[in-house]
Formats: sequence, structure tokens, C-alpha cells
Amino acid sequence: MTQTNISSVVLFGTGNVGTHFAKALIESGIELKQIYSRNPDHARELGSKKNVVAISDLKKADTTADLWIISVTDDAIPEILDQLPDFNGIVAHTAGSIPIDILSRFEKRGVFYPFQTLSKDRAVDYNEVPFLIEGSDPETTRKLLKLAGILSERVSEADSSLRATLHIAAVLSCNFVNHLYTLSADLLEEGGLSFKYLTPLIKETTQKVLYMLPQNAQTGPAIRNDKAVIDKHIERLRDNPSLQDIYRLLSHDILQYHKRE
Amino acid sequence: MTQTNISSVVLFGTGNVGTHFAKALIESGIELKQIYSRNPDHARELGSKKNVVAISDLKKADTTADLWIISVTDDAIPEILDQLPDFNGIVAHTAGSIPIDILSRFEKRGVFYPFQTLSKDRAVDYNEVPFLIEGSDPETTRKLLKLAGILSERVSEADSSLRATLHIAAVLSCNFVNHLYTLSADLLEEGGLSFKYLTPLIKETTQKVLYMLPQNAQTGPAIRNDKAVIDKHIERLRDNPSLQDIYRLLSHDILQYHKRE
Repeated sequence: MTQTNISSVVLFGTGNVGTHFAKALIESGIELKQIYSRNPDHARELGSKKNVVAISDLKKADTTADLWIISVTDDAIPEILDQLPDFNGIVAHTAGSIPIDILSRFEKRGVFYPFQTLSKDRAVDYNEVPFLIEGSDPETTRKLLKLAGILSERVSEADSSLRATLHIAAVLSCNFVNHLYTLSADLLEEGGLSFKYLTPLIKETTQKVLYMLPQNAQTGPAIRNDKAVIDKHIERLRDNPSLQDIYRLLSHDILQYHKRE
Repeated sequence: MTQTNISSVVLFGTGNVGTHFAKALIESGIELKQIYSRNPDHARELGSKKNVVAISDLKKADTTADLWIISVTDDAIPEILDQLPDFNGIVAHTAGSIPIDILSRFEKRGVFYPFQTLSKDRAVDYNEVPFLIEGSDPETTRKLLKLAGILSERVSEADSSLRATLHIAAVLSCNFVNHLYTLSADLLEEGGLSFKYLTPLIKETTQKVLYMLPQNAQTGPAIRNDKAVIDKHIERLRDNPSLQDIYRLLSHDILQYHKRE
């Protein structure tokens, strides 16, 4: 058994990550035996192309598969695990901040974490998605690395602690960044302008940090300690106290950070 | 006189914006008569290619030029204006959040605001830099629009109020975003990883909002109200209370924002 690879999978969950996984697995030629979703329509829709079986009863999970991938919201993982039948294959989850030990009911455990922002409606080049892999034992790790290598060129091992750090960095650099774009879009809309107006600035902000460290790319009123501008901006945001708080806190933090340099 | 265009400029300031302007003006064939800097070495270095005169005495500003561009930090503008001689040409500043009226000592006033993040050491395609223009009278506005049109394809008029709104949006989408990249880089460094690890995620976060509204691109624990993950992240950041505050505030704001939808 030791040199065999993963050739068949059951996928649990049809959210953003699950949807992308299902497509990527099907395209890569891995046999996707079943897709589980609480809402069977979601699973059927996703599996329809390749006659993947949609299930909404966890007891029906196919125990002849090599791997079960649990890709539901973090809060829902324990409940799913409780209801699953016994299984001798590998069980892996896809969550950044959940330790591998949550799967301790199963002998062969793993984590298969895509370090990327995935939205259902947006296609993504899986080859460019970094995968962070952890396994309960060397053979499980090898099999999961091998499977990830079929999907992507960027595969590394990361234990639960390193993965949690990376997840926090992803929240800052992606989720929080996108929220700042959202708040900017609203400001522009109030001024009668399209969000597209910000496109060159957003592109260049990103481009810069591909070539220089972000510490060295910082510009703007906060790093100049330009109090006149900062106060003026906070005053202009008077009808938006939550944005005022964000503006104050981040401006303060930029100034403090670069003072320490 | 009414149909003439700006053909000669004096530039005050050799910071990030001033440095880029000097290069762009020289390349576009506009005569840059003088560059002022408190530190004359900066001005000399910047002007050396084309025999631009470096000055460090504001009284020596060339009053035969068509345009003076004041590109110093916002706080320094009033002091510069006080020391300048009388002038019948156009005086323009380059600041996002300073009203045109600060230049009221001069009859022909304007604003020439590049809506982009500019660092001295990074070349930028000026053609892609949006310029926001304001003039004290139609003829001044026309001349400044014309000059901006030589430098860039993206030129629009914006009054002081709209420009201030855009400046705030730029602080959010560029300065604050870059600071989040900086904080992420530090987290990765603590984990022994290069910032490059985040490159695919940062690229995709940006790419997404070129094709979909940022409101619709939001992912991550906050929008899912995944309290288990949020609490775990805040706990992991216990040695970094300022980052804890940022994490809490932005997570809370994401949740509140999308609840309202």
C-alpha cells in the first residue's frame, strides 16, 4: 500500500473553497466519488458534469475512497466529524486556523489549506494557488503533497502553528485590504465617482510590493506625520464614526511603526 | 495671451512627488527653469541632466516662468508662499487635501494633484497616473488641463471637496493597505517566511476588484462571523496589542458592514 497515491476523493462542503476544489479535482482527473452538502441541490449542481454522486446524509459517505476532504466553515467541522462513519483512508480539512488534531478520531489525518482568496463566481488558476500541507504521519503527508502537486506548482509543508500565522497574514493582506477597498468604493460613490477611479492607484500599490518591501513603500500623510491632513480627513468623516475609528487607528499605527525604525 | 499654453515651469520641492514631476516635465519637453529645495544638493542632483538651475532661496524664484508648482509637504506650503516674490503666472500646488484658496495671494491659482502613490526610487508610467485639476478661472484651468494632458492620458477636473474625498479613498486603498502588507511581512518574518509567500494572495486580491465590486469579493472569517477563528487569531497576537486592536476593529467593521446589506 505504501507507494500508492490518492486517486479517489469524497468532498464535504460546497462553499467558496469546496466549489473550487470540486472543479480542480474533476479537471485534474482525480475521481470525485461524492459531494456532500446540507443542501443537496448545491452538491448536485457542482457534481452534475461528471456524474459525481450528491449526498446530504453523512452516513452515506463512501468509505472506499482514498481521501475525505472536509471543506465546511470552521464552526461546522466538529458536527460533521461526529456524524461520519468510521473510515480507514485519510481525512483532511482545508482550514487555515484549525489544528490537525481536530481530526483525531481518524488514524490518518491531514490538512490541505489553499492559501488564496476564493470566490465561487471567480475562476482561479489553481497552478498559482499555494497549498500548505500537513499530515499525521510521513506517508499521509507524502500522499497529500503528491495530490496538491497535481493541482498546483506551489506546494509546501506547514504545521498547524505556521499555518495559523499565515492565516492571520492572509486576513490582513487580503480580507482587511478588500474591506478598505469596499469603504473606498463607498466614499467614491458618495462623491459620484466610479470605483474604477482607484484602479491605477490600487494596481501600483500592489506592484510596488512585488519589487520592494512594503516598509519601504509606505507613503501618505500618516508616515509624514502630516497632522493637518489627518485632522481634516477625520473631520470630513464625521458622519461615519466607524470609518473615523479605522482612520485614526491605522494612521496612529503607521506613525508609531515608522518611528521605531 | 489667452490661447498660449504653459511652456516653462519652476518646481518647488524635491520629495516623492516633486522628484517624479521634475523627471516627467523634463521628459515631456517642458522647460524646467528652476528647482527649489531647502537642501540645494537635492535640487542640483535632480536638475543636473538638463542644466536646470537649482535654488535654495525662494526670493530667486524665476518670475518669467508660466507656472510655479509647489510640491512640498502640506505643512510647509504656507511658509513657502510667504517667502515667494510677487508673480503674474499660475501658481499650483499638488496636494490632495489642501483647498485651492491657500494660494489666494496669487491671482491665477491651481491644483495639479497626481492620484497615485509615488516613491522616489520607483519609476512610474506617468501616462497611467490620473491627474485631478482645479483652476481659479477657466483659462487657468484650461492651461493646467493641457499641461496634465501632455504628461498623462487620465486627466479630470475635480474641485477641492471632491479631491479631498478622493484623497481619503487613496489613504484607505493605498497607504493603509500598504501598512497591512507591512504588518503581514513582519508576521511572516517571525515565522521564518519570506513576504513573497503572500504574493499570489495579494495579486489575486487586487485582480478580483478589477473585475468585481469589492463588496462582493469579501472573504475570510469576519464576513462568515467565524468567532472561533477570530478569537484564536486575537489570542495568537497577544504580544502585539496594537495589531490586536487593528484585527478587532476591522473584523468588527466587516461583520457590521455586511450585516447591513
